[in-house]
Amino acid sequence: MQPIRRALISVSDKSGLPELAAALAHHGVEILSTGGTAALLRKAGLKVTEVAEHTGFPEMMDGRVKTLHPKIHGGILGRRGQDEAVMQAHGIDPIDLVVVNLYPFEQTTADPNCPLEEAIEQIDIGGPTLIRAAAKNHAAVAVLVEPGDYPRLTAELEAHQGSISAALRFDLATRAFEHTARYDAAIANELGRRLELASASPDDKPDDKQEHPFARTLSFQVRRQQALRYGENPHQQAAFYVEPRIQDGSIASARQHQGKELSYNNIADTDAALECVKQFNDVPTCVIVKHANPCGVAEGESLLKAYDRAFSTDPESAFGGIIAFNQELDAATVSAVVERQFVEVMIAPKISPEALEAAKTKKNLRLLSCGDWTVAGPTTTLDFKRVTGGLLVQSTDRLIAAELRQVSARAPTQAEMADLLFSWRVAKFVKSNAIVYARARMTIGVGAGQMSRVNSARIAAIKAEQAGLAVKGAVMASDAFFPFRDGLDQAAEVGITAVIQPGGSMRDQEVIAAADEHGIAMIFTGTRHFRH
Amino acid sequence: MQPIRRALISVSDKSGLPELAAALAHHGVEILSTGGTAALLRKAGLKVTEVAEHTGFPEMMDGRVKTLHPKIHGGILGRRGQDEAVMQAHGIDPIDLVVVNLYPFEQTTADPNCPLEEAIEQIDIGGPTLIRAAAKNHAAVAVLVEPGDYPRLTAELEAHQGSISAALRFDLATRAFEHTARYDAAIANELGRRLELASASPDDKPDDKQEHPFARTLSFQVRRQQALRYGENPHQQAAFYVEPRIQDGSIASARQHQGKELSYNNIADTDAALECVKQFNDVPTCVIVKHANPCGVAEGESLLKAYDRAFSTDPESAFGGIIAFNQELDAATVSAVVERQFVEVMIAPKISPEALEAAKTKKNLRLLSCGDWTVAGPTTTLDFKRVTGGLLVQSTDRLIAAELRQVSARAPTQAEMADLLFSWRVAKFVKSNAIVYARARMTIGVGAGQMSRVNSARIAAIKAEQAGLAVKGAVMASDAFFPFRDGLDQAAEVGITAVIQPGGSMRDQEVIAAADEHGIAMIFTGTRHFRH
Repeated sequence: MQPIRRALISVSDKSGLPELAAALAHHGVEILSTGGTAALLRKAGLKVTEVAEHTGFPEMMDGRVKTLHPKIHGGILGRRGQDEAVMQAHGIDPIDLVVVNLYPFEQTTADPNCPLEEAIEQIDIGGPTLIRAAAKNHAAVAVLVEPGDYPRLTAELEAHQGSISAALRFDLATRAFEHTARYDAAIANELGRRLELASASPDDKPDDKQEHPFARTLSFQVRRQQALRYGENPHQQAAFYVEPRIQDGSIASARQHQGKELSYNNIADTDAALECVKQFNDVPTCVIVKHANPCGVAEGESLLKAYDRAFSTDPESAFGGIIAFNQELDAATVSAVVERQFVEVMIAPKISPEALEAAKTKKNLRLLSCGDWTVAGPTTTLDFKRVTGGLLVQSTDRLIAAELRQVSARAPTQAEMADLLFSWRVAKFVKSNAIVYARARMTIGVGAGQMSRVNSARIAAIKAEQAGLAVKGAVMASDAFFPFRDGLDQAAEVGITAVIQPGGSMRDQEVIAAADEHGIAMIFTGTRHFRH
Repeated sequence: MQPIRRALISVSDKSGLPELAAALAHHGVEILSTGGTAALLRKAGLKVTEVAEHTGFPEMMDGRVKTLHPKIHGGILGRRGQDEAVMQAHGIDPIDLVVVNLYPFEQTTADPNCPLEEAIEQIDIGGPTLIRAAAKNHAAVAVLVEPGDYPRLTAELEAHQGSISAALRFDLATRAFEHTARYDAAIANELGRRLELASASPDDKPDDKQEHPFARTLSFQVRRQQALRYGENPHQQAAFYVEPRIQDGSIASARQHQGKELSYNNIADTDAALECVKQFNDVPTCVIVKHANPCGVAEGESLLKAYDRAFSTDPESAFGGIIAFNQELDAATVSAVVERQFVEVMIAPKISPEALEAAKTKKNLRLLSCGDWTVAGPTTTLDFKRVTGGLLVQSTDRLIAAELRQVSARAPTQAEMADLLFSWRVAKFVKSNAIVYARARMTIGVGAGQMSRVNSARIAAIKAEQAGLAVKGAVMASDAFFPFRDGLDQAAEVGITAVIQPGGSMRDQEVIAAADEHGIAMIFTGTRHFRH
């Protein structure tokens, strides 16, 4: 236990300050403070000494130099039971609590066009030094960096007659370095981004550079949302971390209403299912994912119809799957799902009270709502792929299709076009090489994860056959171009009438000729969607 | 341009200091310094003023408070052309260059058992403040945080008669915040780890906790190794980042000897191929990867033989593949590969001079050496999987098999056992659901990435048939258990004689009975290897 006798308080975010001040006043804590914080604290009845008065050195340079003084930092860093003599010799009074918020650098630079000078002014020098000094000397000093932590401190002050436990001081010290690490990460990333812009050669496309300059270092911080029982396999340990600011409509924003704890694979697959269903905005749509791949996707007049159809693509794989919906989940759909199949997770933007009730018959079912999404694409800017010793970083795949260009002699019918667009959106979420057969906005066969495109097509056909679905009259999407005409010949053989693919092969003419020979309508998107 | 007239130097790493000191002396720079640095600089002929003398405030508390003084920080932070009057009024002399190394926190805490007190003493307070203040005021001040940057500064001093350009000052300021971000990230991670250990409940397995405590925040910094032309797809932007400390034997340590620039997918696939071939240590082994999956793996008497056999598993998919070897690459193997097939990347721990010469006939071929590896497993501790708004973090999958338990009536023959272990190691690197057929330590068919296990087996059989390889007498590995006996029945039908799989299904007895009916030898590993 360490008593709090003197505190230094300097905050830009004043929330929670009156309550904290009252608690400190109650325990007779002497306060050092600056400017606006000092005025507010005096109003709350505390005896406040201005830092400048305490150090005998005026605040100067519009606040650039306020607290960077040995009387302040000696008071924070002095080792209790060891440095008292030197402190006394130099008139240094111990400081037992530091309460500091930093200048809002991240908020200011959220606007990428904010002038550099403005960004630079938001780099706090005195604040991080106070925080870091207090955290280093947590053996004697407590540090508060966010209002959310004030109640923990005041509760201990109350419980321990004005003292703070070692456990809380260590916890707050950890929080302090989490805070400064995030702060300097934001500064390093922002300066790094601007450095790249400054050094961009005139040949670079400025738009590209501005969107993702990929600075020479990348610093990031994530916070643990959930400790997991294990990882992708039971012998691996794992946790789920989320970004500091979460937008609605993602696995990171999801709220679990019931069911067993989410597993590592649940989270990965739910993300895949949700991001896929987010591609479909207007019509009730259902996506069923298994082992990271959509094994059934369909639109319908209602969510229930959509689920029925998605399920029928591949009932075998749907068993134990993850199901995502793009509209408020209703009771009829929940009941139909749980009566028909074993399901690991269901997720939707919202869940009706009746649906929540209906799910209670299956206590283990993990039922999640993630809130409405405002954009169809991913809300995350950067995608990561881990490799040994490093990280591949790329902008997320937000594009659907750069163009929709008819390359065949025959134009797709309206119905074919609707199915082509449907199958294309699904193919974007199937592991490469991806082949998707679809008809009437329902997947008929999904060929995923093969090392050759023809084998993916073969699997799509096998899956359709296994599910008893006729391929005749269906369309086909391919996530990358066909290198040879054999893909089209094979498609014609099973009854495919229209094809959507990026184009761009050296043998495009041969592939187009094959489509025309078979009377197949073919659309080039100009956009590839590898997903490994 | 800003002239350097006064510098503050305080470094623990003295390398490069004599050369820097000489350059500063040559340009008549006045020096402020402390302790050992001061002594070294005086020997180099510089006029040095001790910081304590300059501030009139003694160094105290064993160095905890040295430079935290307004005469120092006003001198660094003062806005040139604006703050001169206040600086003069308070006897503050401008400081134009700050050269500081931080206490070696990361090195000290590399030992997880280092006492907390020792770790805490390595938290530098004054150093980061000097660095951050100088970086903030880069409009006037230059900052050096590592000896590797000294020559850039001395070159400019020489070229510009003792002045430094705005471009270099901004670059160094960025470096400074990269440095402090990484420093505080290390502190936050270490305190976070210890906080978890402290709060672990008695029920937790202490070993688990100590290996991966998954602190409540994870802070991370990587540095750009290579800007990439594009990402997984051409419309995505990307860069390859590596960890601060790279160990040999990984894609991060790889050196490219010739060929086109590595692409995003090249790096991902080369990592997969290399990590897979690292599983095989004693015998020459070759792994061919396509679209993130091994499409051919084989041992052989020589690398050439191993390649021949790996290629024959799936010649179609091997086209445009990535090939990894586990021994020094020789000329005969290089020649055989480039004569037979189109190959994107070849990687090996070393490459003989003759092999380098042989590769020159194919100028585009990317040829990489990564150095010897000391452990078969991944050198990276943490694995990441990106989801929208977050990150799944897990310990890497280092285990091969928890046990090797014969569960069938018949024991595998010695040859079968060798093939079972071979196929099991391959299966670990095949996307789930993974089925691998192998015979004589060569893959016969690889069934990857399917939503149902029977379809993966079906694909393995199709691939064997496409390559003209008989399955009869081969063994089968499955990355997870068989939920039903159908997997075994299907295996027997195509001629599989032995099976390796984790076990653990509710219907294990039924599966074992099926094996026994067919005379199949079966081994349970107790370890699952999902890889999505």
